[in-house]
This record gives sequence, C-alpha cells and structure tokens, in this order.
Amino acid sequence: MKLLDTIDEPRKLHHLTRQQLIQLCGELREQIIETVSRTGGHLASNLGVVELTVALHSVLNAPVDKLIWDVGHQAYAHKLLTGRRELFHTLRQYKGISGFPARHESVYDPFTVGHSSTSISAALGYALARDQLNLDYNVVAVLGDGALTGGLAYEALNHAGHLDTQLMVVLNDNEMSIARNVGAMSQYLTRLRTDPTLSRTREEMEQLLGRLPAIGDSMLRVTDRMKKLVKQLVVPGMLFEELGFTYVGPVDGHDVALMQTVFRDGLRRKGPVLVHVITQKGKGYGPSEANPVFYHGTGPLRGSEGGKPLPSYSQVFGREMVSLAKKHDNLVAITAAMPDGTGLSEFRKLYPDRFFDVGIAEQHAVTLAAGLAAGGLKPVVAVYSTFLQRSFDQIIHDVCLPRLPVVLAVDRAGLVGEDGPTHHGVFDLSYLRMIPNLRIMAPKDSRELVEMLELALEREECTAIRYPRGQVHDEILNSLGVTGCTPVEFGRAEVICQGADITFVAVGSMVATALQAAAELRKLGLDVGVINARWVKPIDEEIVLETAAKTQWIVTLEENVLAGGFGSAVLEILQEADLLSQVGVKCIGIPDRFVEHGDNPQLLKDLGLDAHHLVEKVMALIEKKKAPVQLVTEHV
Amino acid sequence: MKLLDTIDEPRKLHHLTRQQLIQLCGELREQIIETVSRTGGHLASNLGVVELTVALHSVLNAPVDKLIWDVGHQAYAHKLLTGRRELFHTLRQYKGISGFPARHESVYDPFTVGHSSTSISAALGYALARDQLNLDYNVVAVLGDGALTGGLAYEALNHAGHLDTQLMVVLNDNEMSIARNVGAMSQYLTRLRTDPTLSRTREEMEQLLGRLPAIGDSMLRVTDRMKKLVKQLVVPGMLFEELGFTYVGPVDGHDVALMQTVFRDGLRRKGPVLVHVITQKGKGYGPSEANPVFYHGTGPLRGSEGGKPLPSYSQVFGREMVSLAKKHDNLVAITAAMPDGTGLSEFRKLYPDRFFDVGIAEQHAVTLAAGLAAGGLKPVVAVYSTFLQRSFDQIIHDVCLPRLPVVLAVDRAGLVGEDGPTHHGVFDLSYLRMIPNLRIMAPKDSRELVEMLELALEREECTAIRYPRGQVHDEILNSLGVTGCTPVEFGRAEVICQGADITFVAVGSMVATALQAAAELRKLGLDVGVINARWVKPIDEEIVLETAAKTQWIVTLEENVLAGGFGSAVLEILQEADLLSQVGVKCIGIPDRFVEHGDNPQLLKDLGLDAHHLVEKVMALIEKKKAPVQLVTEHV
Repeated sequence: MKLLDTIDEPRKLHHLTRQQLIQLCGELREQIIETVSRTGGHLASNLGVVELTVALHSVLNAPVDKLIWDVGHQAYAHKLLTGRRELFHTLRQYKGISGFPARHESVYDPFTVGHSSTSISAALGYALARDQLNLDYNVVAVLGDGALTGGLAYEALNHAGHLDTQLMVVLNDNEMSIARNVGAMSQYLTRLRTDPTLSRTREEMEQLLGRLPAIGDSMLRVTDRMKKLVKQLVVPGMLFEELGFTYVGPVDGHDVALMQTVFRDGLRRKGPVLVHVITQKGKGYGPSEANPVFYHGTGPLRGSEGGKPLPSYSQVFGREMVSLAKKHDNLVAITAAMPDGTGLSEFRKLYPDRFFDVGIAEQHAVTLAAGLAAGGLKPVVAVYSTFLQRSFDQIIHDVCLPRLPVVLAVDRAGLVGEDGPTHHGVFDLSYLRMIPNLRIMAPKDSRELVEMLELALEREECTAIRYPRGQVHDEILNSLGVTGCTPVEFGRAEVICQGADITFVAVGSMVATALQAAAELRKLGLDVGVINARWVKPIDEEIVLETAAKTQWIVTLEENVLAGGFGSAVLEILQEADLLSQVGVKCIGIPDRFVEHGDNPQLLKDLGLDAHHLVEKVMALIEKKKAPVQLVTEHV
Repeated sequence: MKLLDTIDEPRKLHHLTRQQLIQLCGELREQIIETVSRTGGHLASNLGVVELTVALHSVLNAPVDKLIWDVGHQAYAHKLLTGRRELFHTLRQYKGISGFPARHESVYDPFTVGHSSTSISAALGYALARDQLNLDYNVVAVLGDGALTGGLAYEALNHAGHLDTQLMVVLNDNEMSIARNVGAMSQYLTRLRTDPTLSRTREEMEQLLGRLPAIGDSMLRVTDRMKKLVKQLVVPGMLFEELGFTYVGPVDGHDVALMQTVFRDGLRRKGPVLVHVITQKGKGYGPSEANPVFYHGTGPLRGSEGGKPLPSYSQVFGREMVSLAKKHDNLVAITAAMPDGTGLSEFRKLYPDRFFDVGIAEQHAVTLAAGLAAGGLKPVVAVYSTFLQRSFDQIIHDVCLPRLPVVLAVDRAGLVGEDGPTHHGVFDLSYLRMIPNLRIMAPKDSRELVEMLELALEREECTAIRYPRGQVHDEILNSLGVTGCTPVEFGRAEVICQGADITFVAVGSMVATALQAAAELRKLGLDVGVINARWVKPIDEEIVLETAAKTQWIVTLEENVLAGGFGSAVLEILQEADLLSQVGVKCIGIPDRFVEHGDNPQLLKDLGLDAHHLVEKVMALIEKKKAPVQLVTEHV
C-alpha cells in the first residue's frame, strides 16, 4: 500500500518520519505525472514543489493555518494531500476538481486563484484579520520568482514590510516564471543564489570581524563602525530586508528536512519573513526537467491522433508578426511572460532587439507600449484576454486618452476550457468597448487575423484584435461553404448571406457556429442570414440598420458576457436610430455568472452556445414572434 | 520686467546665471500662488518642485529631450517655462490649459498623465524607441515617493534595471504622496535621508578602509574582502542599485546649482540612473508648508460665500463609516493614499487599528480587502472611480469570483470637473456591471448613501456604491418636492412618480436633473414619471417591465458612458423580455469620447445632460414618436 493512500488530511504528515516524507514525495511525483499525462495540466511547476509542499504541510496546521498559493497552478501536491486524492483523476476535467486552488472546492484552499502575484496581498489580509479578531493561526504565501515581477506583489510587500504582523512568504525560486525570467529582480535573485559572499552567514562574518585588530581609539571607532556596516551587509537578501522582511535563505527546495527546520523557525518569528527556496521546475521527470517551458502547461500527453493539425490562432499571429517585421522596421512586440503561449518565440529569435518580455507585468506592458508608440514605434502587445484585465486602466489612461497607436493582440479570448473561471477571456469585448478612441476587431479565421493585424498596424489609434484559444476555424468554415473572404475594411462587417426571417450577427469564433445553425434552420424552412461582424468597435452601423429593415430577427452571437457586450452594442445603435420597434433582437452570449472549467465544446453546450441550442432558441423566437406583433396591432 | 516674462521656451534657461535661475524660481513661485489661489489646483506639490523644474530645464534640451512627469499635478512650473505662460491664468478652467501634462496641449508634454506611477514605463518606452530608431536624446522621468508605492512603477524599475539604456529617473522625495506616505519603501527612503552612515560617500569610506592595517596574509584577505563588501554597502540606495539602477543622492531639491551638477552627471551615464532629490511640499508659501495635505488640491482660495455649505458625499460617507464602526466590530476601512479625499480622516483617528492606507496601490487595496473578507472582516474600500480602474482585475478575480463580501465605496463617480479627462469617473457603471456576483448601487442623496452603506455591509457578496464628487443633492431634491424617501431595499428602484408619456429612469446624481426636467415637461403638458434606479445591478426588472407597459418612452439617465452603461442594462432586460417593440427607449449619458476639463455644470451642458437639454431631447422624441408607430402599422 502506498503511503499517499493513508493521507486523508495534511496533519497526517506531522507524524511521518523524514524517510517517510521522502517516500511520500516520490509517490506524489508519480501520481502527478500519471494524472497529468492523461488530463493535461501544469506539469513542470508541480513537480518542482513536491518537497516544498510536503515540508509546508508537515509543519503547518491546515486548514486552521492558511496556506495561500500564488497563481495556483503548482497546487497539485497540495490537492493530493488535502483530501482530494480520490478526485485527483478528475483534475481540470468537466465537473472534476479545478487545476487551481478554489475556496468553493476545499477548506484547505483559503483563497481562489489563477492570476499571478495576488498571494501576498491575500495573506496579509488574512494576517490582519487574524490580529483584529484575536485569533491565532499562521499565514503563509507561496509565490514563484515570476510572480515577483508583478507590481501587485510589490505593493503587498511594501505594505506588509512596514507592519508587524506574522506572515511568512515563501519565495519559490525556479529561475523562471513560465518562460525564462526577466528583470532586475530576477538578476538579483540569481546573485543571491550564486554569490558566495552574499550567502555567507552573519555569524561567519562576525568571526572574521572579531579577528580585526583594534589598535588605538580612532582605529577602534573605525572598526566598530565597519562591524556594524558589514553586519547589515552580510545578511543576504538586503533588498527584502530593506523592504521590512526578515530574509532567510537561499534554501534547497528539494531537501524536506532542511525546509522543515527553516519553516519552523520562520513561523516563530514576529513580523514578516521571506524564505527564499530554490527549486527545479520539472524535478524528477526527465523530459520536463529538460524542457520546462514546453511542460509548463500541457494537454494530455497522448500520441498524435494522425493528420496534420491546424495551426492555432496564436501560431498564425506569431507567423504574421515575423512576416510583418520584415516590412515594418518600426514594429516591436511586447509580451508579459508569454513568449511561447502568444506565438512570439520565432519573432523573439529573429528580432531580439525588437522584442520585449516584461515579465508578469501587464500594466507595464501596456504603458511601455504607450511610450514606445509615443517615441515613434509600432508596438504590438500580445496578452491573454484574462490577463489584459490587469491593464484596463493603462489602456484607458495611457493609450486611448492620448490616442496612441498601440496594437493589442488579445489572445485566448472567449472560453479557454480546462483552466476555467480564472482564465476564461469572456469580458474583453465589454471592458474594451466602453473605451473611447479604441477599435476592436475579431477574426472568424486565420486569413482575417492576418488581414486585421496588417490593418491595425496602419491605424493611428489603438486597435485590439481578439481571437480565441485553439485551432483556427478555417476548415470548418470551408466545410460550411465559406471558401473565400472579402477583404477586411475599416468598420465594415462581412455579409455572408442575407435572410428575411432571421439574421445572425456573429463575432469571431461564433461565425462558424452561426453558419452551422443557419444550415439546420434552412432545413426547417427558414430564410436565414449570417453576418460576420468583424468590427465590434466601430460596429458596422450601416449594415446593422440595413439588416433591421430586411429581417424579422437579428440574433447577435458572441463568446463574451452579455452585459455590455457586442449584443448591447447592437441594441445601443438600434436605440440611437429609433429602430428597436422595427426588428426583433435576441442577444446570445455568456450569461451573468462565472463559467466553470471543462472542455470548451461541453461548456458551450451548457451555455446554449452550440449550433443545436441556437436552432432551438431561434425556433422559440419564431413561435413567439406572432404574439408581440399582434400586441402592437392592438396598441395601434 | 520679470525674468519669467522673457522665457518663451525652456532652452532660454541655458543662458541664465545661477543668480538669475534663483530669481526665476521666486517669480515662478509667485505666479503659481497667484494663479492657484484664483483657479484652484495642486498648490503644495507645485511649490515643492520649482527649483527641480528649473534645474531640469536648464540642463535638458526639451522638447528634443523628453521630460515625463509622473501623476503630473506638479507640472505648473514646467508649463510656465514651456510656452504656456500667457495661458496660465486659464489653468484648469473650461477651454483653458489642463492641470496636467497633455500631449495634445504641448510638444513639451511627451506623455499625457493624471494617474500615478506611469512615468518610468513611459520613459522606458521612449528610451527604447530612441535606441531602436538610432536617435539621440535624453529621457527623464520625475516621480514622487508616493508614486513609488504603485506596482506599475516597480514593474517598470524592474524592467529598466536589467536593460542598458539611458534613462534618468528623478525621485522627488517629499515624504508624502498626497497624505503621509506609508509602506516599507517610504521607511527606506527616510533611512536614506536621515542615516548619516548611509549618506557617506564612497570615497570617504575608502579613506577609512585605507587606514586599516594589513598584517599577514590571512588578515590581508580579510580586509580585502571587507573592503569590497563595504564598497558595495556605502553606496547609498543599495535597494535601487540591486534593481539595476545607479543611485545618486540624496540631493537638496531646492539647490538649483547642485541639482544642475548632479543632473548633468546623471545624464552622462550609460544605463538607468535614479537621482534621489529631497524637496519640501508647499516650499515658499507658509500656509502650504504647514499643511501640505490641505493644500494638495485646493479650490480657489476665496473667502466663504456665506451660508453653511452642504456636506459632500465623501463627508457623509466618512461620518457614516464612523457611526457604523461602533455597531460593527468587524468593519475595517481601506484607502489607497486618500484618507482625507475619501472622508476617512475621522475614522482613521478613532480606529487606527481598523484603518489601512496602502499607498497609491489600488490593486493591493482590493486584493487585501479580499483577504480581509476571507479572514472574517467586513472591509470597505474607498477609492475614486477613476483609480478603481486599476483594480479591475482584482475585483473580478480576487473578490467576485470567490464571492467575497467586500464593499467598494466608489467616490468621485461621474464628471469631476477641473481635473478633467484623466480623472472623470465615467466608466465604472460599465466596467463593474459586467462582473458576475457584483452588486451596484447609486444614491440620489445623503440619506440613501447612508442606507446603502448599511445595506451593503449586510450583504454576503461584493457591493459597490458609486457617488459623485461634491455636495449632496439633498437641498435641490427638497426644492423639487422630494421630501421623504422610501427605505432602500435590495434590488428595488424607487418610483418617485408615474408618467404615461415619458418616464425617466435615472441613476444617482441624475435623479435631481430628471426631476427638474420633469417639472418643465409637465408645464408643456406632458405626463412625466421619474424613477430613481438605486440599483444598477441587479436592476429592478419588475419596475422596468411594468414601466414599459405604462409609458410611451423610457428615458434612461446616467453620468456614465453610454457604451455598456445603465441604459444598456435597461435595453438588455427589455430585449430579454421581448418588450423592445412595446416601448420607446432613449438612453442619455456620456458619449463615446473623453470629456475635457472645466466646471461640471458647463460640461454637463455641453454633453446635453442638464435639465434644459433633456427637455429638448424629450420634446424631439415626442415629435418623432408618431412616425415609427405608423411604420409599424404599415408593416402589419
């Protein structure tokens, strides 16, 4: 029987011997590899923190003590140790356990997470609440060195550092966030790791000082003063010390016993402590150790299913960026720690001087882009929709107010599947649409993405292009009879076909779904039109108003929340034109709730955003239509 | 003749003697005091940087060199020296020059600004663009110590620090941002200012080291090593040095000649330099030196106009917080560097342990609140609407996804007058409304604000209350016949009166305007209703649907952008209920452009949001109404 099978709650670890804890680490690692190769997930980061997790739970008393993971993609071992072992095979799967800590999932997850750099703020909140309520528990935040590039983490360090509350921050330093780390802080951590001078202990240096001769009064004063100075210096981690934290480390993050000692000591201290732990991403799994970026977030590690897979939108974007860079000398690319995810690896390789990875720092990415644009360049910022939420104020204040020509490549827009509610990019159409001077496009396929990027680079204001996660829709569109595509023009929608009964006006990924539904509805005898919106802002007012006169129902379709989304934009212009009484409008999109994790087709089905449900919804409209029309007649 | 009158462009300063520069500083200070006491504005911060501004322009070659002010409320001397002297009397006034640097206003303002902590990102953008385009100019960012508490500033420092591009950051350290500074960084700066050990020069310490005896081989190694260590230490500003910046300072920020020398030296260095300048807020104006918080942002310094002024919404909020704190032990308050502006000074004084000023760190303010709520407290975060944009992702990801009961007190919502486009709070209804699990209220007067705050504290999810800048609307509502008010209930609007022709559905500040317009329209023979929406989310669906059946036109009114705002929410629910053909809807709010600065009544007039324009718009609707009805008849 495995030791792991006996661990139903983390306090069981308190009674294990060091040897047993080491055995447990091996079993956890095995379980993680086995499961992730089936379900997909974050492999490298989870393998890296097995010993760290075991050491923490062996000294903490969770759930009374609060253990808060930053980003949270490294919490698999934590989940296995906190009563979710038997559900672990459902990891990231529809109705299964989440790939991230989540308050609703377990009392052992005190904070819901998915985005980076939140843990110190959250932990400080817990610590201050504990003090206020006169409770007695430990609060620990674990964050990676990558998360430390995020401004939110610094804001929290800065605040915590001048308070005197118990709070232990474990800095899990694996020398990379998702890709190789960037920034001065990263270089500083490297110096801490590698500079033997800095890693000397205070005691050792004091011994050295003791050997200095003290001759004469003035000499004494000099050496005294030097002793004091050197004492300050030889505490490694001065930077954190200056910010008010007691720095401990660096500590080998694969030595359970050592970490136990260090953590116990850290928890006894009053005031904020930062423990610097060195781990290796992918530890214990050869391929993952060798290529942690590739194994950061993986799909199931099955063999190929045959046939050449279609490229993803990210890949199409990346290729086009390389090709545009040749034409436009001024083109530069910015990413926030996602050079691979956003498809920009090749660009980085070919144009290292024109590529800026700013770390997990989306705010800076956008304001930097504003500066680059003001300085005469053409910056393209490639960020996932969900992370661009971090740059909301910067887009308004630094880019759109002064009307600077920054291109926002909004990747992973719409549902993202297994990463779930923290990562779905379902708000961007709403939060971008409200911003003056901003333009927003959404391509239905790879060719449109390419054209839109070219067009965006020619514009003199900020333009966002939002495109989904996963493969391009080219083949499915071809199979639905969309073989060509009209050129993308500023502010113009593409009328794929006209329909007197119903006209779908669909955004990006939903164009294919609209066409599928239209094909079904035609079989049921309806005259159905499909319009590819292309532009969410400015919306093609002419086409919408024309359509209102030609069709009974306009049905808007978007992979975005309905509140303030594309459908609302259509309602707004019909209102403005006083045409709301002339045409029925039905807005279809994501309802007003957070969407769980699971595979995208399943989620879309649940939300009624697949072709089958669209057909049903439209038929219900057609049935209803008669009643309101009669009502109007009566009114008149 | 004044020396200042001869300065039409900043390069004129290159030829002035030191004595003349000092004279110029006096004249600038005089001009600033004279103008601000008339126009209102940021007095203390501008008086503090007069010498700094003169010193910078005397060594820089603007506009070729780029001088970027952080926040920008301290750029008055800069404006006076860069061709805007004759327009300076129009400062912050309608159609006058802005209170902040703005690209559209002058070539000497390379970056538009108003929010904090953007300058290093922007400056780095310029620096990298310069390198890329093989141009040759200097880039200088000036930021206050307060701005250094913002995570964006740190993200930029971290990025710039590992690059090797010319960039000079001037840290204008006046020991406070708007209120007294908080945070470990602030304490660190204080140590730099006050610790004589740290401010010793490297040379001096090397002299000391030279006097150490070197006896024997082993001793030599010890002293050699110590020399190296101490050399590192005695460079003050290690923290910045560790982040990759060359630190210079601290320097007296009122000594023009000294600063000239330091800046010239700083500009000659390759790679990023941080010059630490110590200034005194309000310098040279007695009342402002003594009370820089009061004089941070002032209205015109006229005498009282008689009569007891009504309290502002912020004051009402502050008083109620004090009163609620007595009842609710768990209530805590958070502000991001705005204890006074948000009305929380009294709360801070009475409940220092339950009050958290996190510095200019809105992201952390919200995530900290999430942690506090998770830990069992009832946190109220008081932030201005425009700055809450910085917390957008944190509200979604850290508060609303896990459904934590945080109260957001959204102050300065709507137009804010003279501070202009960087500060208008006209987006919050749109960017908050799209977030699941969030509730949004807006009071029409002081009594509702009080009730809403009480109600919000009882709720188990996040609730935002948005209220405007300035005096409460109580008196004007009284004068319009609104003497009582029904209790505020969850999700319920207040029907003030019914109307068969037109019904205004107004949010917060616009209720008073709706009542004024209604009174006028009644004189013109119309039957006009007024509904106080109270809730923007959940919107009172029942009342809206009922109203749709009882009135010809629903006219929505909000001091928020129309895109995705309250009006859209009304359209969305009428769409959902298929009632759009049953009632005319007109949405009135802020159009899709940034609104300039000026006094609020003037701006509202320009935007057609005053009673007079509402009457006109409604009459136009009534005229039009006949036509569409006929069209429908033809269709049928």
